[in-house]
Amino acid sequence: MKKIYLIGMGPGGPEYLTVQAINALRQVDVFFFLEKEGRGKDELVQMRREVLNHYLGEDAYRIVTATSPTRRTSGEYSDDVLRWHDEKRVLFERLIADELREGQSAGLLLWGDPSLYDQTVSLVADLVTRSHGALDFEIIPGITSVQVLTAKHRIPLNRVGESITITTGRHVETCDPAEIDNAVVMLDYNASFQRFRGQNMDLYWGGYLGCQDEILAAGPLDEITDDLLKTKSEIRDQKGWLMDIYLLRRRKDTET
Amino acid sequence: MKKIYLIGMGPGGPEYLTVQAINALRQVDVFFFLEKEGRGKDELVQMRREVLNHYLGEDAYRIVTATSPTRRTSGEYSDDVLRWHDEKRVLFERLIADELREGQSAGLLLWGDPSLYDQTVSLVADLVTRSHGALDFEIIPGITSVQVLTAKHRIPLNRVGESITITTGRHVETCDPAEIDNAVVMLDYNASFQRFRGQNMDLYWGGYLGCQDEILAAGPLDEITDDLLKTKSEIRDQKGWLMDIYLLRRRKDTET
Repeated sequence: MKKIYLIGMGPGGPEYLTVQAINALRQVDVFFFLEKEGRGKDELVQMRREVLNHYLGEDAYRIVTATSPTRRTSGEYSDDVLRWHDEKRVLFERLIADELREGQSAGLLLWGDPSLYDQTVSLVADLVTRSHGALDFEIIPGITSVQVLTAKHRIPLNRVGESITITTGRHVETCDPAEIDNAVVMLDYNASFQRFRGQNMDLYWGGYLGCQDEILAAGPLDEITDDLLKTKSEIRDQKGWLMDIYLLRRRKDTET
Repeated sequence: MKKIYLIGMGPGGPEYLTVQAINALRQVDVFFFLEKEGRGKDELVQMRREVLNHYLGEDAYRIVTATSPTRRTSGEYSDDVLRWHDEKRVLFERLIADELREGQSAGLLLWGDPSLYDQTVSLVADLVTRSHGALDFEIIPGITSVQVLTAKHRIPLNRVGESITITTGRHVETCDPAEIDNAVVMLDYNASFQRFRGQNMDLYWGGYLGCQDEILAAGPLDEITDDLLKTKSEIRDQKGWLMDIYLLRRRKDTET
């Protein structure tokens, strides 16, 4: 039997790991680093290494690095995603066959929580099913950027009795603004919060959350949007990449 | 200046705390245990004590215990909630005045993450505003039962590109079942998943997640609902209380 640990490492810094995650690191024989090409890659690899150095000792662990397939945007979105997943599965199969001996465990250090907007869980679950008992896996939860966003802004994720939606930039780019009352938006590459001007909303934004370059902005959306667009463009130019997330919250009549 | 740490302790076991949370425990001069009357109270106090014993040493910390006001259900829901919050605020003010010296820090150990369905953040933020600089607070994120639910069921929280709703039993008790595609339901005291029969849905359920008595159930909602209702009633009779959470997921055409 071989085993894969999907370990939620939280937003970046070693202090965000749970004790359960640290214990899991110690079970791992080899870490698979699947890296996307692009700017920010070296910095993200470095942050993973710092976590491992911190808990396992300087270079006292084995890493196998592979380049993660990139999603092509040739045709239909869902077809592209399926093809991308197939390529990723083939890569995983090769890594498990070539780099992991019988009885050994591999570890994947995943940003935030493995269950949230990361399709690795589905991929590995699929491999486990196909293995007919030769492969097992375990998920270790991690702190998400959603939680760091609300903690740093010192706000609750929901007002009394209210529901919360977690969604993507892709969705808010085209949805009816009226359908959003309280939503966290992830993976937004087009600053789609701009579409919510004139909606009586507050915006709570965070970039590089939990990292050293962390930056926050909050206030009435109509008032802070212009400055935030400028800030985003400046820091992206400076650093070469940006990971951000935000919460859109419609004010209630009593708050206006 | 006095300070309050709102510390997310995760679902129960000491292994779910982050290193950031453990470091915060060590900053705390006094822990406020605000307990609700009712069955399960002693067990929940005991779990908090075990966390503190584990990280700070057996009884090597100071606790002040107070009975948390209970929400009366006399009139309008939102009025009841407001009155309840006022009573809680008065209690906090008294604890901070009487039990915390200048320069000291208090800690509240909160289940899961302080931002999710726990109004302590709003209450303490309000006290901090009213204090005009005499009181500060910090939020330490914790692993939520939502994350333990998906980790234990080894499923992602969302399918490709999909949004996630986190909502309450109160909401799903009355909402149109057609509006729910992928939702986590918390604080459901009436097993409202029953209302989603015949909706082509899968149900992923967990009770006492992250605790020793953890129990899981999953499958097509139409098939498992009867057994689950029986299980819930049995364990509630046995233990005297039940904390549970579940995910409702509508199957896509390709999965039926």
